[in-house]
Amino acid sequence: MIDGKVVLLTGGVGGAKLARGLAAVLAPEQLTMVVNTGDDFTHLGLRISPDIDTLLYSLSGLSDEERGWGRAGESWNFMAALRQIGGADWFQLGDADLALHVERTHRLAGERLSAIIADFAARLGIATRIVPMSDDPVATMVLTDEGELPFQRYFVARRCEPRLQSVRFAGADAARPAPGALAALADPDLAAIIVAPSNPYLSIDPILAVPGLAAALRGRAPVVAVTPVPGGEAVKGPTAKIMRELGLGVETATIAQHYRGVIDGIVIDDKDDAATLPPGLGVTSSDTLMRSAGDRARVATTALALAARLRR
Amino acid sequence: MIDGKVVLLTGGVGGAKLARGLAAVLAPEQLTMVVNTGDDFTHLGLRISPDIDTLLYSLSGLSDEERGWGRAGESWNFMAALRQIGGADWFQLGDADLALHVERTHRLAGERLSAIIADFAARLGIATRIVPMSDDPVATMVLTDEGELPFQRYFVARRCEPRLQSVRFAGADAARPAPGALAALADPDLAAIIVAPSNPYLSIDPILAVPGLAAALRGRAPVVAVTPVPGGEAVKGPTAKIMRELGLGVETATIAQHYRGVIDGIVIDDKDDAATLPPGLGVTSSDTLMRSAGDRARVATTALALAARLRR
Repeated sequence: MIDGKVVLLTGGVGGAKLARGLAAVLAPEQLTMVVNTGDDFTHLGLRISPDIDTLLYSLSGLSDEERGWGRAGESWNFMAALRQIGGADWFQLGDADLALHVERTHRLAGERLSAIIADFAARLGIATRIVPMSDDPVATMVLTDEGELPFQRYFVARRCEPRLQSVRFAGADAARPAPGALAALADPDLAAIIVAPSNPYLSIDPILAVPGLAAALRGRAPVVAVTPVPGGEAVKGPTAKIMRELGLGVETATIAQHYRGVIDGIVIDDKDDAATLPPGLGVTSSDTLMRSAGDRARVATTALALAARLRR
Repeated sequence: MIDGKVVLLTGGVGGAKLARGLAAVLAPEQLTMVVNTGDDFTHLGLRISPDIDTLLYSLSGLSDEERGWGRAGESWNFMAALRQIGGADWFQLGDADLALHVERTHRLAGERLSAIIADFAARLGIATRIVPMSDDPVATMVLTDEGELPFQRYFVARRCEPRLQSVRFAGADAARPAPGALAALADPDLAAIIVAPSNPYLSIDPILAVPGLAAALRGRAPVVAVTPVPGGEAVKGPTAKIMRELGLGVETATIAQHYRGVIDGIVIDDKDDAATLPPGLGVTSSDTLMRSAGDRARVATTALALAARLRR
């Protein structure tokens, strides 16, 4: 497949598909996932890390594939009882899912998020390293025509309906990269950095906003993105809507432009037009929709092959 | 039944039976329950009030009668998921039960426990006032032959197995009575104060240890206890075992002696011997076992009648 180590930069559900593909085709010790924590927030006093948890569930086989988020076989008796006593019910917390939030919040009193997540992953039988982008809090804030909203308010409570004007990452300036992320990027065996087909503006940009992380990406190994808008359509989520609201053309070329200076190559979809891409980028085309394990492994392999080609 | 207001001092499961009896025979505005919070503790970062919650569940009809604690129809998916990630599993937290703990902990950041519990009770359709003995933390600590243990460690994790030597109420000296408790005891219409058949050493003594509460009991209205050891046997829980370990005779007379200076009368069981009681106490005898709603109402009525008699 590929010799050496691989770092994946990823957000939530979209990225988790490629994460599973990479985990399937690489040895566990080859792969480190650096995960967006800009979506993290405190709800009912509990510290919630949606993108990390999505990965934990996806990679351990616990995720609900049909619903697209959370755990399979989840029950909702906590939410019903919470509603009964007048608690905030705009954010759904499954009974089993709560265990991650309660235990994480409890342990954060004395431990770094990195250490807690590494332990959770090990307990769930995940051999791949999952590393938050930072152990310091960063909060993605969305400026909309209804004012500035914390990410989950925008994403869950308001279902991305307000018109997005800009995004900022509160706390990013002071956030230090998680030691595990820096270590993975400094590994002399690093052979590829893959940018998952997550939302660039909401899921990947927060990672790049952590000082030291964007810098640590450069010159180490080829950086290859996978398009999140194959054929000009977002597979899931608000990426296309957001691009329109930002006045951007919904196409892979826009994504390539957005990642200029960060990526060396991009996996475009067979439906995309390579001619519109900025010059100087390595390009491979594939069917990038990931419906099955086979799809996921194929896209992962395609991205790794492009990185290998760019390395020579 | 009885004219005027009634205050019940109560702990958990044993007291909740009499609490239900009193709630059944009195108008809601007549009754205030002052509840032990010495069992309260912080577990997994969540603030848990076992005795208050037992009352909330009992009085709202949500309690699991068969198991004897917690909510009926409870599910345990949180605990299973917590175990999966290595969380502490010695204290059982049901999925629906968690709602009280999460919401209480969340609201305690800005509100008094009294206010939160009043709101929970109202949301659960409970018209009777439920008031913690104090809004300040008091922690019942049990000195045993294994050293000093926080109450829940002794009661739940160690199942009351260590030999009890003494009990202290950490924080009680600095704790102020909850305003609602003082108000109920200062009510000019106060006609009776009932001491539930809860464990005197672990459930009622913490209430009496709050400075100002024991004083506020005196001279306001007759104080009547219901024996927790009818015929020399504890109905449930460790009362008899603890009395033996303290070198005390397991009989109602010991309880009456223990409450000397606090109570004016006692409801003893038909199996008890009134002749052994300390002199000067008002006494009524009844079948004090409460298996049915009828039993609960009868014992409540008996206690209220004794108070009414002592008032004349």
